[in-house]
Amino acid sequence: MRVGERKVTITVIAEEAGVSVPTVSRVLNGRSDVSPQTRARIEALLQQHGYQRRASRKRDSAGLIDLVFNDLDSPWAVEIIRGVEDVAHAAALGTVVSAVHRHSGATRKWLENLRTRASDGVILVLSTLQPAHEAELRRLNVPTVVIDPAGGPALDVPTIGATNWAGGMAATQHLISLGHRRIGHITGPPALLCSRARLDGYRAALDAAGIPIDDALIRPGDFYHESGFKGAGELMDLRKPPTAIFAASDQMALGVYEGLRQRGLRVPDDVSVVGFDDLPEARWSSPPLTTVRQPLTEMGMLAARTVLRLARGEQPDSPRVELATDLVVRDSSEHVK
Amino acid sequence: MRVGERKVTITVIAEEAGVSVPTVSRVLNGRSDVSPQTRARIEALLQQHGYQRRASRKRDSAGLIDLVFNDLDSPWAVEIIRGVEDVAHAAALGTVVSAVHRHSGATRKWLENLRTRASDGVILVLSTLQPAHEAELRRLNVPTVVIDPAGGPALDVPTIGATNWAGGMAATQHLISLGHRRIGHITGPPALLCSRARLDGYRAALDAAGIPIDDALIRPGDFYHESGFKGAGELMDLRKPPTAIFAASDQMALGVYEGLRQRGLRVPDDVSVVGFDDLPEARWSSPPLTTVRQPLTEMGMLAARTVLRLARGEQPDSPRVELATDLVVRDSSEHVK
Repeated sequence: MRVGERKVTITVIAEEAGVSVPTVSRVLNGRSDVSPQTRARIEALLQQHGYQRRASRKRDSAGLIDLVFNDLDSPWAVEIIRGVEDVAHAAALGTVVSAVHRHSGATRKWLENLRTRASDGVILVLSTLQPAHEAELRRLNVPTVVIDPAGGPALDVPTIGATNWAGGMAATQHLISLGHRRIGHITGPPALLCSRARLDGYRAALDAAGIPIDDALIRPGDFYHESGFKGAGELMDLRKPPTAIFAASDQMALGVYEGLRQRGLRVPDDVSVVGFDDLPEARWSSPPLTTVRQPLTEMGMLAARTVLRLARGEQPDSPRVELATDLVVRDSSEHVK
Repeated sequence: MRVGERKVTITVIAEEAGVSVPTVSRVLNGRSDVSPQTRARIEALLQQHGYQRRASRKRDSAGLIDLVFNDLDSPWAVEIIRGVEDVAHAAALGTVVSAVHRHSGATRKWLENLRTRASDGVILVLSTLQPAHEAELRRLNVPTVVIDPAGGPALDVPTIGATNWAGGMAATQHLISLGHRRIGHITGPPALLCSRARLDGYRAALDAAGIPIDDALIRPGDFYHESGFKGAGELMDLRKPPTAIFAASDQMALGVYEGLRQRGLRVPDDVSVVGFDDLPEARWSSPPLTTVRQPLTEMGMLAARTVLRLARGEQPDSPRVELATDLVVRDSSEHVK
């Protein structure tokens, strides 16, 4: 009978230390409202009696960080998991990975699981959360951070994103510096702020170089492969097709590759291509893809560090942090012919 | 003071039921060594007093499955996570994802974390485990299953793999059916059994078709992109280069693409290419890659189901299960010119 054994020991410790049982309990639970002298006396007695404190620690810390994705359908996800796991592992915490599949039922179930098993912190990789779920999460009183490379509307928790506007600008400036003047752009989903930011960065770079913006060169995409393929076809069917294409995701850039290949066009000889994300497949594509790196692993690490700070009762430096994107030049972009 | 409150209630229940406190505790912990009549009496009293039993249930089930990778550096990983998470989520369990980075220190730390936080089952995605760690895992008495697409040496736990030999044979037969006679093969790491199985499948298909095996056409690789690139170069430098190349991984197949592109050769017009794995990038490559599909998500699902069976005290159907591989024909393989 663990419970009985433990109770006796706490009582003995309290008597020997000349304090109340709740005071011993406060020391066991790592709370700060005990004087240093009393704490030292109790700690010494606990050690002397070989008191087994694992169970009470466990109640305080679940030893877990929850990492929640909408879907686990992107190579993206593993980059973020790697960052979170790295920080969690070093802090002796497990990383619980969940997918809620954009179904509110799955979100509710996840919240129920969370309620029964407890968690030291939650990292959501989502741009939206239903108000009911947000309220429930707040009621559970678990520190929460959102990783939001898509730049969704602000939630009432710290969020971590990337500098999408600056990334769009860097990609376009790179192509301009290679002498391109007709540069196509395939956007992300128009509803996402990150798509808008990348498009605005593209426009800003053209403006700064005195190149007029031609709306025919801007095609809507959805970040997925197929829309890049389709956009490339539409762009190359123009009476004056572009000499370079900036796609707002790597997956769409690879779709552009395939659209060009099917027309007998070569990258970068006939058309230069730049992507966005720097997923592993950007390195492995043929030719290796010039792209804008989003520091997904670093975003995961920062999210984990932030949630651990919140769990210690500290405040984050800023409610929203954007990590810098970075142009990675490979073989898919070349001086205009 | 929770401990005190709970103790009183257990004592009251025990007195009212006319049993000892440990007997009440056994009922709370779901143990079977209590007579049905006594259990029913205690259960009725527990309910009558509104006894809060969550804490004791939690000690029985951690509500967690541990999924452990060597590294989270492959798009591979997310396919397996998706399968495990799917089954775990449906069973109201969290999936704890860890990477041990092939460092024995990280493995030891993970085992320590596991000891303090408990787990209902462990799925290792590794082909080897140090004997000391295997012993420790056994001592912790946690149900364990190994997912081993690499076909490592048998551990003393159920393992789940894929039919590597049949996959190698299917890839090669496909190229033979397209009229290819000089077929190059870039192998996986020679130390892994799966590399050997895929190579033997390649040889068996050639043998069955009466095509003599030319050792110059077999090049060593390590599953990574760079070794595919290098192997393609060596093969195309032969006095009689192959008309088709079967690479033992998708990453190497994409390296072959790049090796061919840099020589001005086109896939599949000049050389047909077949990979192995069917990662998402196989679909997104240009041209889309013909490859042998390993059912990684299904392997994750089966591993989770197996570990849950073990946790219930049941035995798996077989100590080793190999799920079928499947040839997926896309645009990188074509009839020989």
